[in-house]
Amino acid sequence: MSFDFSKRYDGITGSAIRNIFSLLGDPMIISFAGGNPSPDTFPGEVLSEMAKDILKKDSGTILQYGGTYGRQSFLDVLKELFTEENAVPQDGEVISLTGSSQGIDLMTKAFIEKGDTILTESPTFLGALQTFRLFEADIVGVEMDDLGMVIDDLEKKIIRYRPKFVYTIPTFQNPTGLTMPASRKKEMVEVCRKYGVLILEDDPYAFLRYSGRAEPTIKSFDDGDTVVRLFSFSKIISPGLRVGGAFGNKEIIFKFNLGKQGQDVHTANLNQEMVARYYREGYLYPHIGEINDYYRGKAALMYETAMRYMPEGTRVIRPEGGMFLWAELPEQLNATKLFSEAVRNKVAYVPGTHFYPDGGHHNTLRLNFTMVSEEKIEKGMKVLGEMFKKQIADK
Amino acid sequence: MSFDFSKRYDGITGSAIRNIFSLLGDPMIISFAGGNPSPDTFPGEVLSEMAKDILKKDSGTILQYGGTYGRQSFLDVLKELFTEENAVPQDGEVISLTGSSQGIDLMTKAFIEKGDTILTESPTFLGALQTFRLFEADIVGVEMDDLGMVIDDLEKKIIRYRPKFVYTIPTFQNPTGLTMPASRKKEMVEVCRKYGVLILEDDPYAFLRYSGRAEPTIKSFDDGDTVVRLFSFSKIISPGLRVGGAFGNKEIIFKFNLGKQGQDVHTANLNQEMVARYYREGYLYPHIGEINDYYRGKAALMYETAMRYMPEGTRVIRPEGGMFLWAELPEQLNATKLFSEAVRNKVAYVPGTHFYPDGGHHNTLRLNFTMVSEEKIEKGMKVLGEMFKKQIADK
Repeated sequence: MSFDFSKRYDGITGSAIRNIFSLLGDPMIISFAGGNPSPDTFPGEVLSEMAKDILKKDSGTILQYGGTYGRQSFLDVLKELFTEENAVPQDGEVISLTGSSQGIDLMTKAFIEKGDTILTESPTFLGALQTFRLFEADIVGVEMDDLGMVIDDLEKKIIRYRPKFVYTIPTFQNPTGLTMPASRKKEMVEVCRKYGVLILEDDPYAFLRYSGRAEPTIKSFDDGDTVVRLFSFSKIISPGLRVGGAFGNKEIIFKFNLGKQGQDVHTANLNQEMVARYYREGYLYPHIGEINDYYRGKAALMYETAMRYMPEGTRVIRPEGGMFLWAELPEQLNATKLFSEAVRNKVAYVPGTHFYPDGGHHNTLRLNFTMVSEEKIEKGMKVLGEMFKKQIADK
Repeated sequence: MSFDFSKRYDGITGSAIRNIFSLLGDPMIISFAGGNPSPDTFPGEVLSEMAKDILKKDSGTILQYGGTYGRQSFLDVLKELFTEENAVPQDGEVISLTGSSQGIDLMTKAFIEKGDTILTESPTFLGALQTFRLFEADIVGVEMDDLGMVIDDLEKKIIRYRPKFVYTIPTFQNPTGLTMPASRKKEMVEVCRKYGVLILEDDPYAFLRYSGRAEPTIKSFDDGDTVVRLFSFSKIISPGLRVGGAFGNKEIIFKFNLGKQGQDVHTANLNQEMVARYYREGYLYPHIGEINDYYRGKAALMYETAMRYMPEGTRVIRPEGGMFLWAELPEQLNATKLFSEAVRNKVAYVPGTHFYPDGGHHNTLRLNFTMVSEEKIEKGMKVLGEMFKKQIADK
């Protein structure tokens, strides 16, 4: 039988990256292709005792259906975590999510009809691109400089494409690692407000800061209507628990609530409660400190080895935080084509082309350092650097 | 700021029933309006120890990202639970879900364009209606008799509306409590195959059987392509854990996988593993026996009190299982209008009109017995019966 699938799936194969991730299973391969936090950072012992205790004391509500917005104990924590000067969430403005990716889906569901435009950084998060494509949106990339989206280009594209919203990852962006400073965030809100365009601020890496100081969020420059901000616990507690949250205008969050009802009714209560307790009992901030201590050396080493081994003319962004090093090789190198040779040499990365709404940019690649030992970073970067240099010499 | 929400939300307010559920919080009200399992049936102690042990022994994979299809240990359990004569799931034919409601969403996402038709029982599950509406489907109800969908009407409507799929709850249907016998299921598959129409078999109540014998599923009459079957652990272990599964043709399940990636990436690992262990360690079937012992008397009492107190001419379906008693009052009574008077009398139910794709049927109501003590069933049914009788006398 051949199935008459809906058109939203046309061209969505999910395969570009899946083939790459399937290589992660081979223990002989040094994989810089991942995007996972290191399991060494997972607070298994603490969460184990908490899960037991929560289910022992409160199974009547934990195992029962919960509200779609979320458990009050968790919503209270979300509110505290979202609170900044000029950004204090009120009742009805926050909602629990089954991972912050769900917020990308719910925002798109709330606003996008087939053919509507979404502006994104170019390059940007693959999962967001796939979600936007499933809603048959037109995705238009905005130029970036070292401080994130270029505001002139953003304004030009707002005027030209009349987008419904702008999707941005302001801190330690995936895949580039770039961070938008407060001044740029403020400008972004101003230009979006001017044209009545919403902003989806996806900020899962903000706490993974290895140097420098945290900046106010985009949401903190909002008037309350323009910015929807997502929060993720995946990088700072555990991705496997699938817990995140969103903060935005009450009407928008109500649409999130309606859209979420059909998807999963609510985020699992046990998972919300574990995260809430982890925060309430004072574990979260010290734990973030430990994670950052664990990643700081890896990030520095990956940058250093990139500088040491990559061919002359390579542009590398020094990661102040997050999980990735982004590299732009000399124009004549094609990281997409060279991927299979890299794998033959037992090193994997993600070719940068996949992160661009329109493809191209075959001289770019994303390298993850959180899942790899320092010894393997040293070794793998050397192999890659030599391979790229040999390509140039052979031409 | 007024927001330009997508058209899929037009007319979706989520309020019809929410107002009713908000009454459940009032301890003075005897509520037959719920749809929750009784917390008395939750295996809190066992799950508490399991959660602790799972996180202690395997936090490295439990707290890490998982695959979208699901954890192998859980998929193996799903396969066993789906297995019947003529229905043996192969690799790629099952997927984990964050509650089986997610399967309704993913099926709709996979097949429905705006304006496509879905056939449903009339009345049917409210959550399904809302999901179908969010995808802008046309919903057409199929007539029911005491054995479920009337096949002649089903065939007539397939020819007339060319639906993409038929949504059915074959066992202890929500809201009617009706069960489709094997012969009817077979006919349903035959007529759907004849016209190339898919079936979504949503069967969350199948294990809640208080008398009689389990029948083969619709899926067991399938050739492998026509039927997608959903499995839910919400009624037999816990709804708060949000764990379910789907079984269908590999291509369809692959579309579920793609659609799920953007929604929640994967179902939380801890939750999958708890359910898998609960089954593997032999707790599930004895627990189902206990649940059924707990509900059996309530179901019988609700039927008996309905027969005793409801006005002459009321049609009541005796529940052989599930969670609901369905009542059709004499035509001159309007259960929708009388709802507020019932609440003044401190008893709540769900007016049946909400379950019909086209509304109407104001003489119907759904009564839940799983959450109410036998004393309150006796008292509440008496109050309702007297109120309805008084209405007739006053006319």
